[in-house]
Amino acid sequence: MYLEQLQCPRCEETYAADELRNLCDCGSPLLVRYDLGRLRDEVPRSDVERGRDDMWRFSAFLPVPEGEIVSLGEGMTPLYSLDGYAGQIDMDNILIKDEGYNPTGTFKARGAACGISMAAHLGAETVAMPTAGNAGGAWSAYAARAGLGCVIAMPEDAPEITMKECSLYDARTYLVRGLISDAGRIIGEACGKYGWFDVSTLKEPYRIEGKKTMGLELAMQLGWRVPDVIVYPAGGGVGLIGIWKALDELERVGWIGSERPRMVAVQSEGCAPLVRAFESGRTDSDFWEEATTIAGGIRVPKALGDFLVLEAIYASDGRAVAVSDEEIVEALHAVARADGSFICPEAAAAVAGVRQMREDGDLALDDEVMVINTGSGLKYADLVEADIPVLDVDDEIIISPEEG
Amino acid sequence: MYLEQLQCPRCEETYAADELRNLCDCGSPLLVRYDLGRLRDEVPRSDVERGRDDMWRFSAFLPVPEGEIVSLGEGMTPLYSLDGYAGQIDMDNILIKDEGYNPTGTFKARGAACGISMAAHLGAETVAMPTAGNAGGAWSAYAARAGLGCVIAMPEDAPEITMKECSLYDARTYLVRGLISDAGRIIGEACGKYGWFDVSTLKEPYRIEGKKTMGLELAMQLGWRVPDVIVYPAGGGVGLIGIWKALDELERVGWIGSERPRMVAVQSEGCAPLVRAFESGRTDSDFWEEATTIAGGIRVPKALGDFLVLEAIYASDGRAVAVSDEEIVEALHAVARADGSFICPEAAAAVAGVRQMREDGDLALDDEVMVINTGSGLKYADLVEADIPVLDVDDEIIISPEEG
Repeated sequence: MYLEQLQCPRCEETYAADELRNLCDCGSPLLVRYDLGRLRDEVPRSDVERGRDDMWRFSAFLPVPEGEIVSLGEGMTPLYSLDGYAGQIDMDNILIKDEGYNPTGTFKARGAACGISMAAHLGAETVAMPTAGNAGGAWSAYAARAGLGCVIAMPEDAPEITMKECSLYDARTYLVRGLISDAGRIIGEACGKYGWFDVSTLKEPYRIEGKKTMGLELAMQLGWRVPDVIVYPAGGGVGLIGIWKALDELERVGWIGSERPRMVAVQSEGCAPLVRAFESGRTDSDFWEEATTIAGGIRVPKALGDFLVLEAIYASDGRAVAVSDEEIVEALHAVARADGSFICPEAAAAVAGVRQMREDGDLALDDEVMVINTGSGLKYADLVEADIPVLDVDDEIIISPEEG
Repeated sequence: MYLEQLQCPRCEETYAADELRNLCDCGSPLLVRYDLGRLRDEVPRSDVERGRDDMWRFSAFLPVPEGEIVSLGEGMTPLYSLDGYAGQIDMDNILIKDEGYNPTGTFKARGAACGISMAAHLGAETVAMPTAGNAGGAWSAYAARAGLGCVIAMPEDAPEITMKECSLYDARTYLVRGLISDAGRIIGEACGKYGWFDVSTLKEPYRIEGKKTMGLELAMQLGWRVPDVIVYPAGGGVGLIGIWKALDELERVGWIGSERPRMVAVQSEGCAPLVRAFESGRTDSDFWEEATTIAGGIRVPKALGDFLVLEAIYASDGRAVAVSDEEIVEALHAVARADGSFICPEAAAAVAGVRQMREDGDLALDDEVMVINTGSGLKYADLVEADIPVLDVDDEIIISPEEG
């Protein structure tokens, strides 16, 4: 165990890591700090390369004591190329890191595995959170596995499958006629009233540690180096913050050098608070009124960690890009037809963002671009239209000469 | 490359492995044979342990030449325990091998990756198949990735998500007012007429090679040994045949010994041709009239490889078990609530089969039982009922004292 303490990235205040805690007294999210000097001396990189087949091969970089891990085999998701789509937009090297191959079908499983492990370890009995849908499914699953109570609130237009997941895992589930921010307020009040542990995005420090393993993994999978560009669909932005933190920690232990990918956050034109902030050179964002997009996971009007996302973007000469819902649907279909991968609409936004950056001259032909597919497209069947002919058992398939 | 030839397990006839071929002239499926003596001399087990993070780490046991692999990162799925459910049925050690963490969300991806790689390598232009749904999604995806044409026919009551997958990947897709066997006849006729390569279950020899990697993996993941029992939901039975073939090959190269798990095939009471055959000690099965079950993947009235499935069951002192649809739905919910895993209905049948065998005294408390979860439950949202309260934005969550 190399866990040391919790630290505020805004005011530098520190807190002990052995009790349940939400935000810093200053209102900022807290980050987990480790004794990386000792880790560097004691853990060889090759140990990790030969480790477990899931994200817990990186347990030296994680806060959960051995024996306290609540796991469904999350992480160690594959990288593969999108050669077909890349060719269409005149690029040579687009990689997907496919987080759909995770418990509950999304990258949310990483954060939930770490967050629930720590909540159970530190004595929480019930966790509660607002969600756009997928985080609810993931946290409900791990809470069930750990034997914790779980309370979930989500917008009533969240994907139906995510509502069913929460219900299946026996979470106390509510729909809200509003946005994730409205659900968050309701959950916050109830946590105060009933003593539940609030595990909203960045309101507890361990979810980001789970998400961080994406950054640890991708560096390992590339042979301990980083790609030229990482493109991430940003709602709360925890994954981007986590990847950035991971690369910093890998450099501190000497497993990679000081090189960094350009960090790109993609949002939808209907909810682009980070893009608006970036375009005016600001270090935090304003609440986005009347947020709307088909990509529910990035419909976050104001992210608690906005300043951390923007910090990573500025530090890496990155960018924030907005795309339309039409471009999202187009990219989702184009990737499926060209490369056989059914990505989620949020990742399709990221892919459309790559196209836009290429058209803007902001990406070179041979840039190695890694897109994080945050979840399986299987949870978004509604976005696919299918008009399929029906045959009787004694019918035959007839192909006209033109179709050949 | 250790690929040698194709061999008929029924009449022993052999065929060259460098051309497209379906069945043996005698009508039996063909199996792929390798030069395992040379493999044993040249490939150390530790090479595989340090290999790729997907099923292609076992490429020495596979027929696809390097550079011809069509991959979306399939395989290397996790093992995890079902301690909660096991406790409920008075068992100590039930493991899931979770094939939901695969491209297209099912174990079908393994067979499709290998089958499409070989079809493309050997010069097929269009592949065609009947499917209960999931195989169609998988083969459509890999065909799109390889640039092959793909024709799919499935029962009109197949899961809608699988129809949408086929359509999304641009396969020529048909629904059939009938069973998978009716769809198979329509596809077979069309293959004869249009020259498409028929990739129906066991009608080409490579799908089973992809599925076989489940057996190679699970032995490696247990430290090169086998569990006491493997419980498999059997439709076409290719996975069970593949696992059995894998264990045989592992013994021939000296990576495991002669010990074998008891191989158990679970079917639904509404379609149990293998169970009926097993119970009368027969070595093949009869067509099951009016097959019906909610677990579409095991609604196969007569499997082409029935004799191979039964052979493995008899040779391993295994069993074939039938469960009801009610038991399937109950097991699916129980596993989710107790262990946080949303398994598919076919795997839920397998879990219900474990319960039945335990009740029958056919499993001991400490038997290590491995259940193959053939796909993600996310494709079966219809099986989950959810009645969720809706809140307005200014509502609050109210817990009555009794609910506490």
